[in-house]
Amino acid sequence: MAIRTVVWGENIHEQTNEVVASIYPEGMHNTIAKAINSDPAITATTATLQEPEHGLSAARLKDTDVLIWWGHKDHGAVADEIVERVAERVWEGMGLIVLHSGHFSKIFKRLMGTPCALKWREAGERERLWVINPRHPIAAGLDENFVLENEEMYGEAFSVPEPLETVFISWFQGGEVFRSGITWRRGAGNIFYFRPGHETYPTYHDANVHKVLVNAVKWAHNPQGSLTTIHDAPNVPVEQAPEPIVERGPKLHQAGEAGYR
Amino acid sequence: MAIRTVVWGENIHEQTNEVVASIYPEGMHNTIAKAINSDPAITATTATLQEPEHGLSAARLKDTDVLIWWGHKDHGAVADEIVERVAERVWEGMGLIVLHSGHFSKIFKRLMGTPCALKWREAGERERLWVINPRHPIAAGLDENFVLENEEMYGEAFSVPEPLETVFISWFQGGEVFRSGITWRRGAGNIFYFRPGHETYPTYHDANVHKVLVNAVKWAHNPQGSLTTIHDAPNVPVEQAPEPIVERGPKLHQAGEAGYR
Amino acid sequence: MAIRTVVWGENIHEQTNEVVASIYPEGMHNTIAKAINSDPAITATTATLQEPEHGLSAARLKDTDVLIWWGHKDHGAVADEIVERVAERVWEGMGLIVLHSGHFSKIFKRLMGTPCALKWREAGERERLWVINPRHPIAAGLDENFVLENEEMYGEAFSVPEPLETVFISWFQGGEVFRSGITWRRGAGNIFYFRPGHETYPTYHDANVHKVLVNAVKWAHNPQGSLTTIHDAPNVPVEQAPEPIVERGPKLHQAGEAGYR
Amino acid sequence: MAIRTVVWGENIHEQTNEVVASIYPEGMHNTIAKAINSDPAITATTATLQEPEHGLSAARLKDTDVLIWWGHKDHGAVADEIVERVAERVWEGMGLIVLHSGHFSKIFKRLMGTPCALKWREAGERERLWVINPRHPIAAGLDENFVLENEEMYGEAFSVPEPLETVFISWFQGGEVFRSGITWRRGAGNIFYFRPGHETYPTYHDANVHKVLVNAVKWAHNPQGSLTTIHDAPNVPVEQAPEPIVERGPKLHQAGEAGYR
Repeated sequence: MAIRTVVWGENIHEQTNEVVASIYPEGMHNTIAKAINSDPAITATTATLQEPEHGLSAARLKDTDVLIWWGHKDHGAVADEIVERVAERVWEGMGLIVLHSGHFSKIFKRLMGTPCALKWREAGERERLWVINPRHPIAAGLDENFVLENEEMYGEAFSVPEPLETVFISWFQGGEVFRSGITWRRGAGNIFYFRPGHETYPTYHDANVHKVLVNAVKWAHNPQGSLTTIHDAPNVPVEQAPEPIVERGPKLHQAGEAGYR
Repeated sequence: MAIRTVVWGENIHEQTNEVVASIYPEGMHNTIAKAINSDPAITATTATLQEPEHGLSAARLKDTDVLIWWGHKDHGAVADEIVERVAERVWEGMGLIVLHSGHFSKIFKRLMGTPCALKWREAGERERLWVINPRHPIAAGLDENFVLENEEMYGEAFSVPEPLETVFISWFQGGEVFRSGITWRRGAGNIFYFRPGHETYPTYHDANVHKVLVNAVKWAHNPQGSLTTIHDAPNVPVEQAPEPIVERGPKLHQAGEAGYR
Repeated sequence: MAIRTVVWGENIHEQTNEVVASIYPEGMHNTIAKAINSDPAITATTATLQEPEHGLSAARLKDTDVLIWWGHKDHGAVADEIVERVAERVWEGMGLIVLHSGHFSKIFKRLMGTPCALKWREAGERERLWVINPRHPIAAGLDENFVLENEEMYGEAFSVPEPLETVFISWFQGGEVFRSGITWRRGAGNIFYFRPGHETYPTYHDANVHKVLVNAVKWAHNPQGSLTTIHDAPNVPVEQAPEPIVERGPKLHQAGEAGYR
Repeated sequence: MAIRTVVWGENIHEQTNEVVASIYPEGMHNTIAKAINSDPAITATTATLQEPEHGLSAARLKDTDVLIWWGHKDHGAVADEIVERVAERVWEGMGLIVLHSGHFSKIFKRLMGTPCALKWREAGERERLWVINPRHPIAAGLDENFVLENEEMYGEAFSVPEPLETVFISWFQGGEVFRSGITWRRGAGNIFYFRPGHETYPTYHDANVHKVLVNAVKWAHNPQGSLTTIHDAPNVPVEQAPEPIVERGPKLHQAGEAGYR
């Protein structure tokens, strides 16, 4: 079965900014979805901020294997309830790919537990992404580096937790560097942050970027069933202990009590 | 200068449960503070849930190097504003030591970005903590293992991010295991979770536990000044780029604009 | 194409010890190979210490996707040249699964760069393996724990590098714990250490152990081509620098020189 | 007591190359030792390839807290026996700081278990080191970046194990990037690799480089006693098991046997 992928787009600048609209007349989310749909292992659809529940109903998320997130102008408009719902699905095993300005999205900050801040400069400068971890699944099919001739600069220090693995590091013409492709695991969910994608440049039309996105969806996909027990904190009854023990000492809790949260 | 440490205690069961009151007549927070104050490198004071701002005013946190957190019965009573304030100080470099049932505290879940759930059983069983990482600063002065004759069981899978380092793993009489001492870094702040400390047992009177707490305070302390810039996302002007570049292409932002959050 | 897997067995105790011979009349390597061959995604063959080049010719290793290693009595008999050959293939992308007493094999110590020592006790005691990382590919299809009624004890501290991920932790009846399933990446090669498998017990006839081995082969397999460039340290000519630069200052090396090793 | 530090220098190019001799008339090792000796917490002496046992007798290593290693032209001249002796001391808790071309030293490759290869170009180009991990002890007192106007380029992919923490990433004028400051722990020993230091440039006269070296010595120092047990693989007698157990099943080993290595 194909990997059921939802590309979430904020879809604001495409509607309000002529430059962005001219580069992404169908919206960035549709451009991305189309690119990854070219791989037969993936079935991608889209969702946007403006839809009811931002297009992320509980039922839809339940049937989503990997979620791709692009947002920028109005992170605050995403409902806290939806953010929590997405976080829970990530813990249960849904993959999450956060793009570019999504570093400041509520969902990314929620899962990282850090400010996720960085330096930036919008000057259309050259970015060169180096593969730090050759043969990592997310770098499959890439040369040792690839170039985006015009991109926004993001500079370190990027205040995220030390990653599981670093896949890409970017060189910028103006003198900065950035960890442009990094991975984490949270609960049963694989998370990948990919830096490029400023909306005034044609980044999501780039063939190497397409390769990274396809690879990342496959890497993030956890084919095992949902880990719904991850939210539980079960009280194991004494008589069900793996090894026989005799209860001793004073107690706070009654048998079968749920415990405090 | 001594390491300015605040021991935060929920201070509920000491007031309402006879068993707990008899073991910790001065409150768990005072027992812990007294224990670590025996080391001349540490100056510990206490704060509790019941104080104004839970004893954690902005001014006090600013002068705190390491915060120790014990809570259990009423995590929900901690004000979200205070939680956020503590998180910000951790990112700036304040050390944080989370004890036992603090795994479900708002501040720990906030910084981990995961459910932080686990199995449990209150049967007064034997726990043996093994030093997995000998000569780690937090294990200084300990034997290869130490025993707590009566403790609550916490069992894996503990849903926290893969740690920076694993220091202790516990063996439980009833058949479970648990990563009982694990570290992370978030921003400039060092975080240590230490499992033991159920309130109906005299764990915080144990000499080995005292050693771990003293070691952990020293390890968590970041003697460098506060990293207050960690909250910033500066827009680097083109003319201040480290290497001279010429601005190209279309732009979203005006010069000097703050960017979206 | 199926994952080409070689199960390497030392094959000594099966020939010299009656107990081992009675449990594994075909040799442990054949028992393991047969078990994983039951999965259609895997094609497993065997190699042993006694064969020319220990069954690990350069040609055969070139066509091997994943190597499983079991050795115990005579680690020293493995030729250093073969060890180096295997290490190079791991760096190029061959997966490696090291079993039980293989912790002291030359190849494992070579790739870890640490003593790889541990405590042990041969008493046929009960081992319970807990899944620390649910939904990790190597734990697919397992319950939250599984038991081996008779196993040799291995106890911490296990002197290996901090792993990429911890998948299993074992509880032993006699009071010890051990990180029984841990992963690393070295070059392009995925490495998994799996603790159980003492030769005087029927561990490799256990259905849960079979699941772990099948899962581990699939996880360790890197489907991308061999990273043969990993051994190179190329001198990038100034005129081929990604950005135009002018050579400055004094030099040690002549243009095109290979550099020192 | 001051941190007893030994600065090991290959000391070849200083004797044979006029440029290097003119920059480091006292030898690079003496320049480095002098720089770090300016901090009262450190007592540094030197050792060179040409001395008996390369200046690294067992007695001297026993009294060494931190070893700094610079080599380039003749890594092969370092005796294997001395390499093994140094590795053992690192596992026991001696800190190790490997500089620049030391990436190909026998001791670094021994401890990493990987090729430790990289790209390079000797063109005197500009290197800018960015602090990725602000308030890490090794970055204490540094600005957000610092520049070395003339350095050799080292480019990724650097084939080392995923580090514990990344402290610096370098930007190079010619378009490459490199993880220039990375840490690992092996046994009880802290290891830091620091990239700059090509012998035809005055890198070790740079004030920021001095700061990094001083910081790194303090970070690498493990004040706890030597972990000499790290080489042991003790057979725990059944009657000394932490929990009482009864021996069961067949055995390979006699009571008290040392086990195979």
